[in-house]
Amino acid sequence: MDEEAIVKFIGRVVEVKGEESKIEIKPEFCRGLFHLNQFSHLIVLYWLHLRDNENDRGTLRVIPMRHEGAPEMGVFGTRSPSRPNPIGLCVIQLLKLEECVLIVKGLDANVGSPILDVKPYIPRADSIPEAKAPEWTLKGPPT
Amino acid sequence: MDEEAIVKFIGRVVEVKGEESKIEIKPEFCRGLFHLNQFSHLIVLYWLHLRDNENDRGTLRVIPMRHEGAPEMGVFGTRSPSRPNPIGLCVIQLLKLEECVLIVKGLDANVGSPILDVKPYIPRADSIPEAKAPEWTLKGPPT
Repeated sequence: MDEEAIVKFIGRVVEVKGEESKIEIKPEFCRGLFHLNQFSHLIVLYWLHLRDNENDRGTLRVIPMRHEGAPEMGVFGTRSPSRPNPIGLCVIQLLKLEECVLIVKGLDANVGSPILDVKPYIPRADSIPEAKAPEWTLKGPPT
Repeated sequence: MDEEAIVKFIGRVVEVKGEESKIEIKPEFCRGLFHLNQFSHLIVLYWLHLRDNENDRGTLRVIPMRHEGAPEMGVFGTRSPSRPNPIGLCVIQLLKLEECVLIVKGLDANVGSPILDVKPYIPRADSIPEAKAPEWTLKGPPT
């Protein structure tokens, strides 16, 4: 069986202004955005391209530095960008959809970050308000 | 700039029994699971390996068949497994963590599905109970 696969970039983050980001989807994937604005929130998967190197992808233990009091954790218990597959995930608010461009709020990606996927946020499946997380996740940035 | 990247498989779904699934993480990635059980819920990204072909990856419009009354949608407005990057995403409950094995509840993946990433579910960032989604998402399976 295969032990790896290829992901293709379907677009890029082209602008970041404060909490708002502009995502441009490549023309050949635009038809996939039809009716996307029926959802107020989306899950965006992006490629942490600056961490796509052997060293960052070899990271298995981290101390989440932006969260005061966080202990050393296995990387899969953190949202660290240094991880075996540098896939970033953000739940964002869709502010505007216009042809191939999405204006979103809350995307923690850099200008130039490639987009891998956009999925609808479905509260019934994705919202677990009572989920338990350790106290250090409450300090610093959300992820 | 690159237009694609390589993801590596860090483990696999080895058993599915009703709502419960068993995930085995490869020994070389096990150190990354340290303290993962501080979280009650996780986000699992997996590879929809049966859809990793040109035809499924070319899908841009779908009618979500398991959801009565769903209209034709752009694929990014659905959780369809046929999509340009066949990455599946499930929010799951962690029932048990033992060495390299996770027993989880609510993973909608098949036996043999490769695992790409495991992330902690952080309600502060990931839970949006008031997110708006169209009515058809309420019918049929959660995703």
